[in-house]
Amino acid sequence: MKFEITILGCGSAVPTLQRNAAAQVLNVLERYFLIDCGEGTQQQLRRFKVPYNKINHIFISHLHGDHFFGLIGLLSSLSLQDRKAELHVYSDKRLQEIIEFQLKVMNTRLNFPLIFHHLEREPALIYEDKALTVRTFPLKHRYDAPVTGFLFTEKERERTIRRDMTDAFQVPVAFMHRLKKGEDFVTPDGEVIANCRLTMAPPAVRSYAYMTDTLFRECFAEHVKGVDLLYHESTYGNEFEDLAKETFHSTAGQAARMALLAEAKHLLLGHFSSRYPDPTPLLKQAREIFPNTDLCYDGAVFELPVAKRG
Amino acid sequence: MKFEITILGCGSAVPTLQRNAAAQVLNVLERYFLIDCGEGTQQQLRRFKVPYNKINHIFISHLHGDHFFGLIGLLSSLSLQDRKAELHVYSDKRLQEIIEFQLKVMNTRLNFPLIFHHLEREPALIYEDKALTVRTFPLKHRYDAPVTGFLFTEKERERTIRRDMTDAFQVPVAFMHRLKKGEDFVTPDGEVIANCRLTMAPPAVRSYAYMTDTLFRECFAEHVKGVDLLYHESTYGNEFEDLAKETFHSTAGQAARMALLAEAKHLLLGHFSSRYPDPTPLLKQAREIFPNTDLCYDGAVFELPVAKRG
Repeated sequence: MKFEITILGCGSAVPTLQRNAAAQVLNVLERYFLIDCGEGTQQQLRRFKVPYNKINHIFISHLHGDHFFGLIGLLSSLSLQDRKAELHVYSDKRLQEIIEFQLKVMNTRLNFPLIFHHLEREPALIYEDKALTVRTFPLKHRYDAPVTGFLFTEKERERTIRRDMTDAFQVPVAFMHRLKKGEDFVTPDGEVIANCRLTMAPPAVRSYAYMTDTLFRECFAEHVKGVDLLYHESTYGNEFEDLAKETFHSTAGQAARMALLAEAKHLLLGHFSSRYPDPTPLLKQAREIFPNTDLCYDGAVFELPVAKRG
Repeated sequence: MKFEITILGCGSAVPTLQRNAAAQVLNVLERYFLIDCGEGTQQQLRRFKVPYNKINHIFISHLHGDHFFGLIGLLSSLSLQDRKAELHVYSDKRLQEIIEFQLKVMNTRLNFPLIFHHLEREPALIYEDKALTVRTFPLKHRYDAPVTGFLFTEKERERTIRRDMTDAFQVPVAFMHRLKKGEDFVTPDGEVIANCRLTMAPPAVRSYAYMTDTLFRECFAEHVKGVDLLYHESTYGNEFEDLAKETFHSTAGQAARMALLAEAKHLLLGHFSSRYPDPTPLLKQAREIFPNTDLCYDGAVFELPVAKRG
């Protein structure tokens, strides 16, 4: 029942020794989803003991180097380590050109199928399995680097059978799957036993949103309404609001306002400018607006516990 | 008078946490020359405190990713840090295509002139300044990845004036530059004072050779004859000589034989396969043939001291 994010890098354009270029990995029930892949990501995956051959899906927010320069190296290593399973990359379509051009020039054929999915500018459901959905929404960065936000949401689980109660009411095994979906049970005598007496509600669904390299726009909040954990870039402190605007980035205060508008439960700040060896002042600024805020650091792990429905 | 090599990465195709992908920096009198640039090189330059904005020349041995995937990130960071000085890259011409294609797709214009020099398959003098020459020679790797060896050699310096002796013989200042070049001095009385009484020989010239990703071939030794310090790949131990041949690499024993044939003074082993967390057995194998051998490790610094002419 794991739902956990590991920060592999939370630096910005120029990495520092404290902060690698952007990359994170989301572990949902031992399925691993890589989000951005700056230079050195394969080393960070090793450093933080992520079983990276289990990554089957990679999401790239936009085509600035600090978000994708590590992809070609990761693909090469996976191929050399004889990966066979399909690997899916969701990105600006030009990333496919960049990767395929390099592979062609190097005369390299990957050992595994590499499948690109091109992100569009409209909100979309881009991935779905039995436990998770991934939705995209457009953010606003430099005109030549369209950037995409990602929302990872667990699917609603079935209700949990209360074995003591189903025994007591002699519910037949064949009816259990209907119970799990919420149906009431009618006894042979015609008595209606309310579903809530026979089952327990499943845990609340958990969700994680990733918003990086973007100007602050109030309207973005609608895409991540009620999210449990929001990662929002905070390249600068509030003192550089003009610079943030000029470079199409956000301040700590703006990240906090986004969390507030979105009614998020918890905010993570990252993508810090190299001018902040210690980003604690940014944390303070954000907490004035949104108290439940934390700072990312390379290697940080944030787990969303299984929670009862509120 | 510094002549010093810093190992930034000495891993092979798949990097490990102990060993980054291939990269080294040669410091000749505070001029910095980067040799290969695997993924993560910019971080290694920071880690080992190399003033990387002083690098003006980058030499790439061949187009396997572990030797150049870090170049695009380094270029981007230099540009973001507002470098203005020309940067020269010496490589297979296809590297220019790879880099320019990425910059074009990203709509990025570097802040500094990036000048590519295409390496050919014939031995050549590719670089020369007042203190140093760089020569290339072809090595033998996979057919689709022509690989180049590099030989860095100090230029012969002028002789050093013995001020006490030139005072004693009243050598005029105007004659000093001829003394430095080795001329004898003739006094007004017609007495010939041998140059060796008035000057001292300059220090011996120092040289460094870089040979990576290559099969062992006796004939390669001629290109690095008498080199002071030879870096030679040793991807495998002697027990994998067949595998080395199959993958176009060398063993520790072959690296040592190359040092012996070339009459090198000192051998460095590197480019270790990830199957050797500890490459000490390779050192032992090499030393049986060529005792003055050392192992590279990331961050190792090997300085060639100024030495009297032997």
